[in-house]
Amino acid sequence: MERVAMKVVTCSAPTNIAVVKYWGKDDVALNTPLNSSVSVTLHQDQLRTTTSVAGSSSLQSTRLWLNGQEQSINKRVATVLREMQQFAARVHGKADQETRQHLHIVSTNSFPTAAGLASSAAGYACLVAALAEFYGLSEAHEEFPGQLSVIARQGSGSACRSLHGGFVCWQKGEQADGRDSIAVQVADDKHWPELCAVVCVVNDAAKDTSSTTGMQTTKATSPLLAYRAQHLVPERVKTMEKAILERDFDTFGTLTMQESNQFHATCLDTTPPIFYLNDISRQIIQLVHCYNAQAGRVQAAYTFDAGPNAVLFVEEQHVQELVALVLHCFPLTSGMPIKSSIAFDRTSPSALLTKLETSSDGERACKMPHFPNSVKMVYVSRVGGGTRVLSADKALVDAVSGEPLPSNNDN
Amino acid sequence: MERVAMKVVTCSAPTNIAVVKYWGKDDVALNTPLNSSVSVTLHQDQLRTTTSVAGSSSLQSTRLWLNGQEQSINKRVATVLREMQQFAARVHGKADQETRQHLHIVSTNSFPTAAGLASSAAGYACLVAALAEFYGLSEAHEEFPGQLSVIARQGSGSACRSLHGGFVCWQKGEQADGRDSIAVQVADDKHWPELCAVVCVVNDAAKDTSSTTGMQTTKATSPLLAYRAQHLVPERVKTMEKAILERDFDTFGTLTMQESNQFHATCLDTTPPIFYLNDISRQIIQLVHCYNAQAGRVQAAYTFDAGPNAVLFVEEQHVQELVALVLHCFPLTSGMPIKSSIAFDRTSPSALLTKLETSSDGERACKMPHFPNSVKMVYVSRVGGGTRVLSADKALVDAVSGEPLPSNNDN
Repeated sequence: MERVAMKVVTCSAPTNIAVVKYWGKDDVALNTPLNSSVSVTLHQDQLRTTTSVAGSSSLQSTRLWLNGQEQSINKRVATVLREMQQFAARVHGKADQETRQHLHIVSTNSFPTAAGLASSAAGYACLVAALAEFYGLSEAHEEFPGQLSVIARQGSGSACRSLHGGFVCWQKGEQADGRDSIAVQVADDKHWPELCAVVCVVNDAAKDTSSTTGMQTTKATSPLLAYRAQHLVPERVKTMEKAILERDFDTFGTLTMQESNQFHATCLDTTPPIFYLNDISRQIIQLVHCYNAQAGRVQAAYTFDAGPNAVLFVEEQHVQELVALVLHCFPLTSGMPIKSSIAFDRTSPSALLTKLETSSDGERACKMPHFPNSVKMVYVSRVGGGTRVLSADKALVDAVSGEPLPSNNDN
Repeated sequence: MERVAMKVVTCSAPTNIAVVKYWGKDDVALNTPLNSSVSVTLHQDQLRTTTSVAGSSSLQSTRLWLNGQEQSINKRVATVLREMQQFAARVHGKADQETRQHLHIVSTNSFPTAAGLASSAAGYACLVAALAEFYGLSEAHEEFPGQLSVIARQGSGSACRSLHGGFVCWQKGEQADGRDSIAVQVADDKHWPELCAVVCVVNDAAKDTSSTTGMQTTKATSPLLAYRAQHLVPERVKTMEKAILERDFDTFGTLTMQESNQFHATCLDTTPPIFYLNDISRQIIQLVHCYNAQAGRVQAAYTFDAGPNAVLFVEEQHVQELVALVLHCFPLTSGMPIKSSIAFDRTSPSALLTKLETSSDGERACKMPHFPNSVKMVYVSRVGGGTRVLSADKALVDAVSGEPLPSNNDN
């Protein structure tokens, strides 16, 4: 029997790093946030999710593969599928044949899953983008502005921010049904070309509290979270957006660090307390403050999400020395794997080290940390664009059989 | 030439552990706090400061020895000396001969100075108590109630709480001159005889930020601290006092842990952030939550001050198993030094361990930590009394020569 090629679309999506943090849901069912947040979209050259969607009336059921392993369709994926199909039915007038087809969804990350690199934001953004492409839907649809944002948000809150490139604000919104709780671009990926992000993957034995359960516990038990969300974040969002528009690294970096610290402070104020930073995270924080102290200005800024990995923001002219400093303080005995769009020499930053060791961060004399094998991977990334539609040759699924293609892992 | 024995008085003072935390000064010169705090006075059998004051017109200058080393008179000691002399002059009508004499002050701690056991509270309380005895002054003086508290506070804020035994509230006060910012006993040291404190001294390489500079930085930069001090602590003080009066361990323990965590949260919200907890502190915190989870109630409570050492509150019937658990998880290869008023057997708590390993703290399955040589000393203490006047044979100074006695270190 001759088999007909099925419809296959493939998209990729970036990760994003919040610089004004989201922690705590306003409405659990709608997945709306207690406060607005602001993020930077990282370039897909280093960190990305790729997802193919294949559909055909010949498929027997909807199935999902992540990084080569078939997964059951969890509740959040099911919600995204249902919402996208309903959206398609509304846009196209009524449920057509396509929206009733079963799908095969195949997704891979360009980075190790266990690294704690917030794959859910890129993953759900990519799923929404691929389904939108499959069903012929657009985020900019006149009648339903922000609908893709609303659906991505229901997969994973921060996923709505990964739909866009550049700098993005996820607005808390005012409507009871959450329809205006959507991600809006503050500036595109060409706006601040010098800005780089150095992602330091920290070795960590402990299993972290999942962000879903963590933020529920914090909301239920931390009096500081409610105060922060209501009284501090609205002003901080304005300050951050202005700093981004003005490419004001000093304000951007200072507030990024304060936001990271205040988010982790509310985790610590939780009962029982939640710890995402470990002693290596703390060493990186103190190293950045010392680095800024010797420079006499904010030249690098750290931020940490729900795990010990650091993301360091730095402008291009300082990337080389900052990465050299990280490699010096946290050497990997087998040689540090770096994935970077910028070339590095790996010489020791001796002049910088001398300067650092005679500095103080205002409180303490700077003492260079030395913790071999505690940072296991470094990614250096620029600000990048939003979700992309890829060509057919990038498909992760066989258009005839509907099965995942064998080599569908691109990390 | 025949030499006449000079007047020598000797006092001892306890340490205290705050269960509602003090962090941040309202008025730096007066050393008044941003909020009231509540503490437990620990028994002097384990942790105490002893101070002798000798005075004579034959002494050439006022001198100070701490733990066998002569020290210069710092600003805070000078303030306490001046204020005590002015108080004596007011009480006794005018400056008599005694208040113009030079003094030799000799002080020792019963614990290693470098252990980070908040020696300043006991130290300044003991200095004030010894000077009060020397000048014949009393805290209960009718005309000047709380005057010793006011003076001790100017040496070190928490020192005023160490003047009293039992459970103590240091009231923020209302007066501009700080005269009502004094320590008041909530309940005496006989009130809750079952309550014990297990002090775990944690090995730490890093030098911590001093609490004096730390609290100034937090006040200047943390928006969460101001909110906490104004809006959260007043209610927490009331709840804590009630829990103490009712010997309600569940409320006492829950709030003690929340207070510790919220204090450290404000340290993390500081720019640059201040870290006092390290990975071992975090392991102890999670161990206590697991211990409580297997018990199905709050049976132990941790609190941490400006360093990584843990103080664990527990009622007497559970001291044995809690200490055994700490020794099991944090063994000292050379054998753990314990200073305790309670006898221990050092058998492994195997039944408890089995129960723990099948528990969860609500979030995570309990996994027993194993970090040899990370807790270097354990003190087990009951609630104790306030400052004491000691007999002449306990003097640390030679009444004839005015020199420190050779063996004046009692740890």
